[in-house]
Amino acid sequence: MPIDIPDVVIDRLPLYYRLLERLEAEGRSVVSSQELGTELGVTPAQIRKDLSYFGRFGKQGRGYSVHRLADELRQILGLDTRWRVTVVGIGRLGRAIASYPGFEGQGFDIIALYDASPSLVGTEIEGRTVRDVSSLREDLEREPVDIGIVAVPGEVAQEVVDTLVNAGVQAILNYTPNRVQVRTDVELKHINPVLFLQSMTYHLKRQRDER
Amino acid sequence: MPIDIPDVVIDRLPLYYRLLERLEAEGRSVVSSQELGTELGVTPAQIRKDLSYFGRFGKQGRGYSVHRLADELRQILGLDTRWRVTVVGIGRLGRAIASYPGFEGQGFDIIALYDASPSLVGTEIEGRTVRDVSSLREDLEREPVDIGIVAVPGEVAQEVVDTLVNAGVQAILNYTPNRVQVRTDVELKHINPVLFLQSMTYHLKRQRDER
Repeated sequence: MPIDIPDVVIDRLPLYYRLLERLEAEGRSVVSSQELGTELGVTPAQIRKDLSYFGRFGKQGRGYSVHRLADELRQILGLDTRWRVTVVGIGRLGRAIASYPGFEGQGFDIIALYDASPSLVGTEIEGRTVRDVSSLREDLEREPVDIGIVAVPGEVAQEVVDTLVNAGVQAILNYTPNRVQVRTDVELKHINPVLFLQSMTYHLKRQRDER
Repeated sequence: MPIDIPDVVIDRLPLYYRLLERLEAEGRSVVSSQELGTELGVTPAQIRKDLSYFGRFGKQGRGYSVHRLADELRQILGLDTRWRVTVVGIGRLGRAIASYPGFEGQGFDIIALYDASPSLVGTEIEGRTVRDVSSLREDLEREPVDIGIVAVPGEVAQEVVDTLVNAGVQAILNYTPNRVQVRTDVELKHINPVLFLQSMTYHLKRQRDER
């Protein structure tokens, strides 16, 4: 497998996978790059280029085998393994994340929830007891996790991320408004709704200016 | 301004802006592409290339004027105007979004909240009364909004999005696990944590395989 696949391509792969999963469920056996493109809002040429990073899945003029491509993406994306996830910060947002229905079916097991608030620690959420964040480090040494989801107040985000990373967590999904830093060998993604809105207002602004 | 700026570049601009805002607050007047790159985890060459789409901000060897660049990005991203936002779906996630602290300071005014549940309609959340989603269309005709944030159950996502778009909403931020379709002149972004996790497990899987 080639070493340097651009991150923008990797970020699109889960979208391909999701679409293929749906086609598989609908009993489809073949799909064209045209159809994949229309569904995903990407040109067919882009689809072919993206997928070519991972080998030859399609036959000229015959389309892709839905099952084979889905299977390959499952392996590439690591969806054929289960991943251990912990959520730190069980305010409104953390609670919404902890009860998000899509994780388990996709191989993500939320194994523990943490918070600093005495009124939350010890309570049950979605069948899991909220643990005290002060035991996070110790717990991780005993029960390692792969991914940490961080939904604490922004001011303590870096501290929590450092604790997770120092205890061996390899990927961080940061829901706080604060930017955090991690070592280069740790994966990091931010989910900040303001940034999503701002990249859309770029287009809205241009439309307004053109009127 | 050139017409075709790649979406990946536009998606990075809010990150630049946020960093520049911080530097401005710290009283910094000049910043190098090197420093911007280090802070954002992007190469200095990428920074220079991204910003070159929008004209000449920097002088060779002297760095960028923090204030001028921030100001320009504010205009480019439409952050010098205020945007009217409505949130549809006030479950756990919608409530977390409605109380997210970062919107107002960045020009996003959440002007109304909607839900279908009789137990929520009429209640107050963050100082706003939750309205019945059945009046969404009518309300939008009287009080137009620019952006709709959708946090309803996946099954009704498309229906809600259609109502918003048909009533003139120009940008949709979709928090549901379901993919939705909009006309090409409407902006659409999805926030689905599973897709973020999946693009990280690609890297985790590779690290595992290498061991």
